[in-house]
Amino acid sequence: MKRMGKQTWLFQHVYLNTTGTAVGPKEAEGPLKHTFDMTYLDLYCGESSWELAERRLMNDAVEQCLAKAQMTERDIDFFLAGDLLNQTVTSNYSARSSQIPFIGMFAACSTSMETIAVGSTLIESGFADTVIAATSSHNATAERQFRYPTEYGVQKPKTASFTVTGAGAALLSRRKSDIQITKATIGRVVDWGIKNPLDMGSAMAPAAADTIERHFRDTGLLPSHYDLIVTGDLSGVGSPILKELLLEREVDITNMHQDCGLMIYRPDQGIFAGGSGCGCAAVVTYGHLVKMLKTGKVKRVLVVATGALMSPLMIQQQESIPAIAHGVVLETVGREV
Amino acid sequence: MKRMGKQTWLFQHVYLNTTGTAVGPKEAEGPLKHTFDMTYLDLYCGESSWELAERRLMNDAVEQCLAKAQMTERDIDFFLAGDLLNQTVTSNYSARSSQIPFIGMFAACSTSMETIAVGSTLIESGFADTVIAATSSHNATAERQFRYPTEYGVQKPKTASFTVTGAGAALLSRRKSDIQITKATIGRVVDWGIKNPLDMGSAMAPAAADTIERHFRDTGLLPSHYDLIVTGDLSGVGSPILKELLLEREVDITNMHQDCGLMIYRPDQGIFAGGSGCGCAAVVTYGHLVKMLKTGKVKRVLVVATGALMSPLMIQQQESIPAIAHGVVLETVGREV
Repeated sequence: MKRMGKQTWLFQHVYLNTTGTAVGPKEAEGPLKHTFDMTYLDLYCGESSWELAERRLMNDAVEQCLAKAQMTERDIDFFLAGDLLNQTVTSNYSARSSQIPFIGMFAACSTSMETIAVGSTLIESGFADTVIAATSSHNATAERQFRYPTEYGVQKPKTASFTVTGAGAALLSRRKSDIQITKATIGRVVDWGIKNPLDMGSAMAPAAADTIERHFRDTGLLPSHYDLIVTGDLSGVGSPILKELLLEREVDITNMHQDCGLMIYRPDQGIFAGGSGCGCAAVVTYGHLVKMLKTGKVKRVLVVATGALMSPLMIQQQESIPAIAHGVVLETVGREV
Repeated sequence: MKRMGKQTWLFQHVYLNTTGTAVGPKEAEGPLKHTFDMTYLDLYCGESSWELAERRLMNDAVEQCLAKAQMTERDIDFFLAGDLLNQTVTSNYSARSSQIPFIGMFAACSTSMETIAVGSTLIESGFADTVIAATSSHNATAERQFRYPTEYGVQKPKTASFTVTGAGAALLSRRKSDIQITKATIGRVVDWGIKNPLDMGSAMAPAAADTIERHFRDTGLLPSHYDLIVTGDLSGVGSPILKELLLEREVDITNMHQDCGLMIYRPDQGIFAGGSGCGCAAVVTYGHLVKMLKTGKVKRVLVVATGALMSPLMIQQQESIPAIAHGVVLETVGREV
């Protein structure tokens, strides 16, 4: 069986072999600092522009993945990647340097779980033997593209999120390892009419609720099946909305819910409502959560990365913010599936 | 067997059931005018902005697909789509209205064949029963995003291409129909150092050559296996470069090569080197080529959609233009595979 319900894929032979993470200075000072492979002291990461810095982060994450697996780019069949920059240029130029056949994807900040989900279908079905899924974001490249020129120092409301500077990559294959990818739920686009791009938590919470509810409906499981249900970047604003929306639908995730955007920073780091960006769910999942799974602290985790699918132009044209969430289940090997 | 060589996928059970196409005024006056499902008399397509017009084109293409298949959105498992606008907003907002679980993709003007290729893996392996793959571009939205404000009326060199206003969609399933999708070759990123965004044919020709050469190396086939080998939007500049590059590698496609960017317009339509954009390969393939296959004029076609993966910011930052090409084989049913 490949599918349960309409939106949920089942995998029996997909393993997360290695992961790679690289982050910027603020993430390196946060509570998860010891879970990242590489950290940089400033936003330039040794490069001459922020865009090159973001590209370096993605390349680092991919190289970490390969080094841990004792593989080279030539051993990888397909590179699935996406990011927030217009035309996903971080991924495109990273694919240029790695020369791995490239499948570009875009799901805003849910790209990490979208690429892992689609990559898992390729591995499970034999269309690929090895896949790397990667994504990135960078605070300064995102700020200038989505908001205002950074030099303006524009003030923000507390509902705003703080884009994570970081990249995460994961290497998938049928070769057995500690962590298995067992399920993925592909989301629908949900839009409740929120128009404020400085409050994406509120815009994305209904999409996360839709995907989580659908996951449990498709699979017949209960939230207690998971040690953790982790959302991508709902932040301090979106997280309570999500839990309330799910309670209304009789799905109670209160005891096991966490949000990557709240896990990656301390509240006193000046990060407004919490972290966001493609890199947020990626580095927390491929760093912290993978470590938790490997050390046996948790055994089964549902990661639901959330994405706001608007552009600055759509906001200027008075559109509301469509959102999506894609969920992926990671489990330690040996658990009954 | 699911794969030949490294980059080529094989499909035995994937059928192209229906297609939908919608185009703007210049395409509706071109040589392929009778092959499109819907045509509009002006660039606004009855909407109040160009962006809404592009979205309408994509929605039209999807609706045509569904109507011909006598299906509704609820019958479709996954919607794979992408477009040229920043953050692929045409696709995102189209997915919002259709409510089909959504997998966003980006491969610039090669997105049509990328979505069909990945969609075919989902159908072949049973992760989906029905998929719609769609993409779009719009001359005016692309002009203002990638080049100059249209009001400037900036002059262009003859190497420039003209972005197609149009959207194409295809419905895939295992349900038998006239046309089968039998192979796909996923491309690598190729960059020969071209920096001129007003000459994308030169930038993309090496990527098309790489994918076509790889296709024949992976499969062991010869170009004569195909009645037509059709590239996406190499235009009058890139097409001769492609043929020369392939001849140097002892692959002669001279007799069966055509380019969607040259097929869609008459030379006297003021389109510089030819048509381009995500919609170009999509509407020519899903309109004209599908008609040629259905009427038996051709029996086996390799469509290689080409994409330039830069952004305006990358050009401003003195980067060269990375390019990619993804190939898909369409055949009339009954041919030996």
